[in-house]
Amino acid sequence: MKTIKPLREKKNTAILLIHCPDKQGILATVTEFLNKNNGNIIYLGQHVDRVEKIFYMRVEWELKGFAIPTDKVGEYFETLIASKLQMNWKIYFSVSIPRMALFVSKMPHCLFDILARYTAGEWDVEIPVIISNHPTLEPVARRFGIDFELVKITAENKREQEQKEIELMKKHKIDFIVLARYMQILSEEFVKNFPNKIINIHHSFLPAFAGAKPYHAAHARGVKIIGATSHYVTSELDAGPIIEQGVTRCSHLDKVENLIRKGRDLEKIVLSNAVYKHLQRKILVYKNRTVVFN
Amino acid sequence: MKTIKPLREKKNTAILLIHCPDKQGILATVTEFLNKNNGNIIYLGQHVDRVEKIFYMRVEWELKGFAIPTDKVGEYFETLIASKLQMNWKIYFSVSIPRMALFVSKMPHCLFDILARYTAGEWDVEIPVIISNHPTLEPVARRFGIDFELVKITAENKREQEQKEIELMKKHKIDFIVLARYMQILSEEFVKNFPNKIINIHHSFLPAFAGAKPYHAAHARGVKIIGATSHYVTSELDAGPIIEQGVTRCSHLDKVENLIRKGRDLEKIVLSNAVYKHLQRKILVYKNRTVVFN
Amino acid sequence: MKTIKPLREKKNTAILLIHCPDKQGILATVTEFLNKNNGNIIYLGQHVDRVEKIFYMRVEWELKGFAIPTDKVGEYFETLIASKLQMNWKIYFSVSIPRMALFVSKMPHCLFDILARYTAGEWDVEIPVIISNHPTLEPVARRFGIDFELVKITAENKREQEQKEIELMKKHKIDFIVLARYMQILSEEFVKNFPNKIINIHHSFLPAFAGAKPYHAAHARGVKIIGATSHYVTSELDAGPIIEQGVTRCSHLDKVENLIRKGRDLEKIVLSNAVYKHLQRKILVYKNRTVVFN
Amino acid sequence: MKTIKPLREKKNTAILLIHCPDKQGILATVTEFLNKNNGNIIYLGQHVDRVEKIFYMRVEWELKGFAIPTDKVGEYFETLIASKLQMNWKIYFSVSIPRMALFVSKMPHCLFDILARYTAGEWDVEIPVIISNHPTLEPVARRFGIDFELVKITAENKREQEQKEIELMKKHKIDFIVLARYMQILSEEFVKNFPNKIINIHHSFLPAFAGAKPYHAAHARGVKIIGATSHYVTSELDAGPIIEQGVTRCSHLDKVENLIRKGRDLEKIVLSNAVYKHLQRKILVYKNRTVVFN
Repeated sequence: MKTIKPLREKKNTAILLIHCPDKQGILATVTEFLNKNNGNIIYLGQHVDRVEKIFYMRVEWELKGFAIPTDKVGEYFETLIASKLQMNWKIYFSVSIPRMALFVSKMPHCLFDILARYTAGEWDVEIPVIISNHPTLEPVARRFGIDFELVKITAENKREQEQKEIELMKKHKIDFIVLARYMQILSEEFVKNFPNKIINIHHSFLPAFAGAKPYHAAHARGVKIIGATSHYVTSELDAGPIIEQGVTRCSHLDKVENLIRKGRDLEKIVLSNAVYKHLQRKILVYKNRTVVFN
Repeated sequence: MKTIKPLREKKNTAILLIHCPDKQGILATVTEFLNKNNGNIIYLGQHVDRVEKIFYMRVEWELKGFAIPTDKVGEYFETLIASKLQMNWKIYFSVSIPRMALFVSKMPHCLFDILARYTAGEWDVEIPVIISNHPTLEPVARRFGIDFELVKITAENKREQEQKEIELMKKHKIDFIVLARYMQILSEEFVKNFPNKIINIHHSFLPAFAGAKPYHAAHARGVKIIGATSHYVTSELDAGPIIEQGVTRCSHLDKVENLIRKGRDLEKIVLSNAVYKHLQRKILVYKNRTVVFN
Repeated sequence: MKTIKPLREKKNTAILLIHCPDKQGILATVTEFLNKNNGNIIYLGQHVDRVEKIFYMRVEWELKGFAIPTDKVGEYFETLIASKLQMNWKIYFSVSIPRMALFVSKMPHCLFDILARYTAGEWDVEIPVIISNHPTLEPVARRFGIDFELVKITAENKREQEQKEIELMKKHKIDFIVLARYMQILSEEFVKNFPNKIINIHHSFLPAFAGAKPYHAAHARGVKIIGATSHYVTSELDAGPIIEQGVTRCSHLDKVENLIRKGRDLEKIVLSNAVYKHLQRKILVYKNRTVVFN
Repeated sequence: MKTIKPLREKKNTAILLIHCPDKQGILATVTEFLNKNNGNIIYLGQHVDRVEKIFYMRVEWELKGFAIPTDKVGEYFETLIASKLQMNWKIYFSVSIPRMALFVSKMPHCLFDILARYTAGEWDVEIPVIISNHPTLEPVARRFGIDFELVKITAENKREQEQKEIELMKKHKIDFIVLARYMQILSEEFVKNFPNKIINIHHSFLPAFAGAKPYHAAHARGVKIIGATSHYVTSELDAGPIIEQGVTRCSHLDKVENLIRKGRDLEKIVLSNAVYKHLQRKILVYKNRTVVFN
């Protein structure tokens, strides 16, 4: 159903995400490297954490006219720059469109929001497969023309079913996973396969109300604001690096049912914002915290 | 595609929306009327505008066991109560599901958001028809299984085409219209047919940036916050009673294109919130302002 | 220094706060009682918690012309209405200005915000005394012309010093206490003397980051939004009924020092909003949750 | 009354604010200049407006150990860098504390908020004088130990009184002016003397409701959100470059009086945020828009 995708001028850029111990001149070194090789910088974000003494940088430049061939850029950067500065870095190329898998259960609001953006061409992404532990949302997948794989999980078969999911990820060449209100806890083993590559939405303002039934807990505590939190999944439940959070006001008039209703809009917008930032290669993780470039 | 609609216990209630000149005892009079006839009140909102001296009320009660037959409730209320207190009132019954028409042009984000809620069963509404002046979104309508009517508008044919739209509204027994980023200005004549029954979303924080290209205007003015406004359409452009507004922060880094991107999420959430309130019969209009009950 | 207090027309009203088991006709009963005795209602807020089956109400009416003498209103209401409906109720009269004590330590921002409102005549309140465990803010108290009592607390003398504070509360006829960043934990015994009469501001979005150093904890967790929470103090630390919460966005660029800076504004506004609602007699507590009327 | 000012480690830094036509290598050129002269960069913010093709930068570095004497930094920078790149630049030194004048009328909330921050040592600023066209707030100035100058303005004497104000600015060596709800329109002539050096707070979400009585206008229009806008004053009323905006929700229940009450908190926080950014030398103006660095 990708019928309404707007034409967008394709960029041909490289994106570097870097962090390393801070010292004088790192920024000048990197920008000189790009300038000398005729790399026209179109985005540059950088800052230094004075407490941790870490330098962070995201730089994007046009590959057209760049002196170093695309398939050699990483090697040259490592040899000439990164290795000398103990850099931790990643490179991405805008021509390679990321492939995302969606994991869902029964609630459709996040799924619809993502598929609408996908269909409307808001994002540069491919979604080859939707995985679920329930058949409920199969019709939605079908109408949007996306493969739907039912992988039922029980306490007994979890290990083998997750193995099956990992195979599906490989088969579909998945770059990252989005848990769009997937109501299964992923095993530590599964998570290890996708470090900082699984984005979850938790329906509370973490770290408040981690775990099950956060809206019930929020109502019981009598909070005046509810929230939603998108984070990278780590082996510890609801404790991974936070990407984005959102909140909305509530009052004594809001029963649990109404918190759930209000929360749906929060969840879908917060999750989609996080996915957008991830797709833009604007997120860097350091010590369980994210740096999200503007 | 209404395949995933959850079962919800059907309510059988009546809803009264009232405004009238304030005087002592109105509230007691209405609640006594309901109590004496065994109407179990499940919602009551009321307040007095001390400046205008107007009394506003929304009351909802269960019809099961109510002494007055449903088809007589209005008549009895008018005779026994409303006529004596110069009340302006409307009654709605929860069993009658409102029928909504969607008007769209080329942008799909609001349409998708509404159809997702519809399909997910978030709202008690029927959407028998989508009308557009462009064929762009027909595939979306089709996939969601909703009639799509292409009504192309030009300066020359506007009068007759709007007449055709009015006929379509009648044919589909439409109760109210939602302009989901419909990029045509409706004529005064068309609007007159649907007083406080056409909900629009304008992509600015009204009254700032009324009219065309508000994001360009917002960028030119250098605002630090952008907004979206949902309102009932009146004959004066972007000047009808405001139902709901939302805002989001922006900065000097946001070019027009990015304001448009951020604005899409605002627009769809603000519009859907307004439609939800309308469907709940929680909105009352008085002198170009809305009262929106909790 | 109450030199700039604006003249405001004094109201002469009574305010009833009520909660009781729900049943048909409570609202009509109360409004009839007021109407028959010529009490002109100027505010009425009420709702029913359908889950707990509790009726909540706040009603304010003019005493001028009211048939029952002011000093008998409570007695009549109890006899004729409340006792029959198992009501839990409180009555307040607008002519009696509440007397508030401020407890502070070293940080002045909440103190200044409250004293500014007091001096500007924003609130109908008297502040006869400021109590502190540090001398730091004495000059502030002095300039605003308010008694400052230094009550140093140590682990050893806590019991007797709190007793001294209780004496000061009695001496100054204090109605309620505001902890304006008071950095001492009050004992259960002290708290018992002022049930739902001690308002605290906690510098986090409770229940996240209860206890000490919440901004450090928020930074360590990498949250994208920080908050502040005003609540009534109970014997359990940071667990009392929440009155008001506020939030503000932060990012990876915000070190702890900057969270503290941003948090100051949040804290003072959230605390002052809570105090304002309390002064307006708009807060009712039921089962560790607040009902805050509009 | 600067009795509670906390000791803060004094920084000895230089701050450069730059904008110029974009071309390759500007960033590298500037950072090399600082690195080679042993200037330890502690803040660097920069971006390029791709549409306008303008490069913006704010850089702050430690002067200790910097090879160029402080009083020569500007000259060297102009000669070696700026003149070659058509830069528009300004330099500030952290040791020179800005001197601010406050203009007020009758409303004290913004004044109190600023004086509280001043007294608490939140800001590195001197406030030698408060100017007003009314005597109302003189006691406030006095209690905070600041000179108060009454300069009454009428239609007839405006020219000469503004001249007197300009003299006062010179006498007190004022760097910038803050209009803390000053209810006089400054003449074009006065404004010309202080380009981008007069900060105003307007009590609406500009450009909506420019001019007089914005809360009345907001109420009449029935908006659901009110705002406040801080901007640099230019000769066109309420049309100068926007520094900061804030909003808060309202409803049909809020009469004008209540909008005014809610607005006070907005106004004071938005104004103080703008002043803080100005004091931090984080604001750059280009074509009636501000760039506000993080």
